[in-house]
Amino acid sequence: MTDKAEREAQVQRNITELKSGATREPVAALLGMELVELTPGYARVRIKLRPEYLNFNGKVFGGIIMSLADFAFGYASNSLVCPSLASQFNIHFTAGAQPGDELTGECRVIRSGRRVGISEMTVTNQEGKLIARATGTTIPVPPPTG
Amino acid sequence: MTDKAEREAQVQRNITELKSGATREPVAALLGMELVELTPGYARVRIKLRPEYLNFNGKVFGGIIMSLADFAFGYASNSLVCPSLASQFNIHFTAGAQPGDELTGECRVIRSGRRVGISEMTVTNQEGKLIARATGTTIPVPPPTG
Amino acid sequence: MTDKAEREAQVQRNITELKSGATREPVAALLGMELVELTPGYARVRIKLRPEYLNFNGKVFGGIIMSLADFAFGYASNSLVCPSLASQFNIHFTAGAQPGDELTGECRVIRSGRRVGISEMTVTNQEGKLIARATGTTIPVPPPTG
Amino acid sequence: MTDKAEREAQVQRNITELKSGATREPVAALLGMELVELTPGYARVRIKLRPEYLNFNGKVFGGIIMSLADFAFGYASNSLVCPSLASQFNIHFTAGAQPGDELTGECRVIRSGRRVGISEMTVTNQEGKLIARATGTTIPVPPPTG
Repeated sequence: MTDKAEREAQVQRNITELKSGATREPVAALLGMELVELTPGYARVRIKLRPEYLNFNGKVFGGIIMSLADFAFGYASNSLVCPSLASQFNIHFTAGAQPGDELTGECRVIRSGRRVGISEMTVTNQEGKLIARATGTTIPVPPPTG
Repeated sequence: MTDKAEREAQVQRNITELKSGATREPVAALLGMELVELTPGYARVRIKLRPEYLNFNGKVFGGIIMSLADFAFGYASNSLVCPSLASQFNIHFTAGAQPGDELTGECRVIRSGRRVGISEMTVTNQEGKLIARATGTTIPVPPPTG
Repeated sequence: MTDKAEREAQVQRNITELKSGATREPVAALLGMELVELTPGYARVRIKLRPEYLNFNGKVFGGIIMSLADFAFGYASNSLVCPSLASQFNIHFTAGAQPGDELTGECRVIRSGRRVGISEMTVTNQEGKLIARATGTTIPVPPPTG
Repeated sequence: MTDKAEREAQVQRNITELKSGATREPVAALLGMELVELTPGYARVRIKLRPEYLNFNGKVFGGIIMSLADFAFGYASNSLVCPSLASQFNIHFTAGAQPGDELTGECRVIRSGRRVGISEMTVTNQEGKLIARATGTTIPVPPPTG
């Protein structure tokens, strides 16, 4: 196979393995997050907001919104280069969310290089309203040599 | 009272109310996060990492680390101006963490103005190793006028 | 006039004033940056990269790329709410640039509220290649009351 | 030499070369920035603010403040691993600055690994007041193999 064909085959293997693993990921079960779609460099995920996510102000805790974006970020990044670790993540909150809302997180990898990956994410509610916008940096982790 | 004395009294009322609310905060119970210390513009929080926090790579999910930092961020910010909402949050991951680790999150407000607040956070493990470093922006939310 | 009509008229006055001021902005002259287009919540700017922008590594200095993004950010934000001050700015560098390149910076305000604004920016080269992607936070500054 | 001794010798060579290069760096001359101190993983730089740095609002342009932080960032990062390229940079502006002010930028590398570096920066004025606080990510760039 050519390098390009080999790389594409590896991406398909990554996606198959990630989809399979997603159904038994501990933190996804804990937080009620679900992988909905995974294609090369793109992931769509979902969460139904529950009263358990409220903070002391009676608002949905920011860490839950960040977790949803990070969940999409991990899948999209690892579809191209696996394993990749997040090194940095920046988020802007643009609107609030309520228990009962169903949020969608999307991540697109905008640069995937040998040494660094850069991705952008959105979180929207069931009406398509933008709840948050994020970007992040990933670093490929080479497998241990043996 | 002078303006300064009134402001300090308000900060003490905020802290009393936040400490009381912390013991029944839904998301803190869900994620096992605990408020340990709260003084004007400073919060220290704690989490014991559990296997439920692992992601598909067998690593502690980044969203859990972000949640711990955000938890400290919310308390520190709201000690000075309550309610304050997070508008932006940026984090750098500097080392990994394992189930069984006990992580401490700390937040210090470095600027608290009438229109914007800026804070910085660290997450360290039980050996004092830096796990993550974050900064964030908060916006005071005026109470509804009636 | 209705509130909405008054607001739109104010935006048009902001744009007229900003366009006029852009031609005599000191830092724009120093760095060779030019405002090309300004509509409500959107700005497009330009710079021709010169050898004076090189750093010790023989690369175009990152601060120049940031300045171009910030230049677009300032105009787009102030078209809607003037004056607005930048409170936070985050940038990801996705590709290098060379002297002789002509870079375009674009900024779109994605949220403009009474208390905070959020914008996103791109920097691309003459071939449309993405050089950097940024986001930022602005705070409206009320005029001094008197 | 041991690995550690070799690494330390390399850091000293980096610092010697960077200090020498700093005196003829084009962008430093253009913007009036000066390297004041460089030790392993730490840089201190300086700028005297001039009227040419003002923007359309009559404020010192944010890109100048970012450039000063980025200038320190580049030297501190490259003292440890050279060449390193900035991949990401986030800044919070905490106070304004005026022509005539002399600003100091400082950068400390807080993590320097084989695959990624993380740094933090401050910008302060002549009275020690915090003007901005930033963090950034660098990626080591291996020399071309031949």
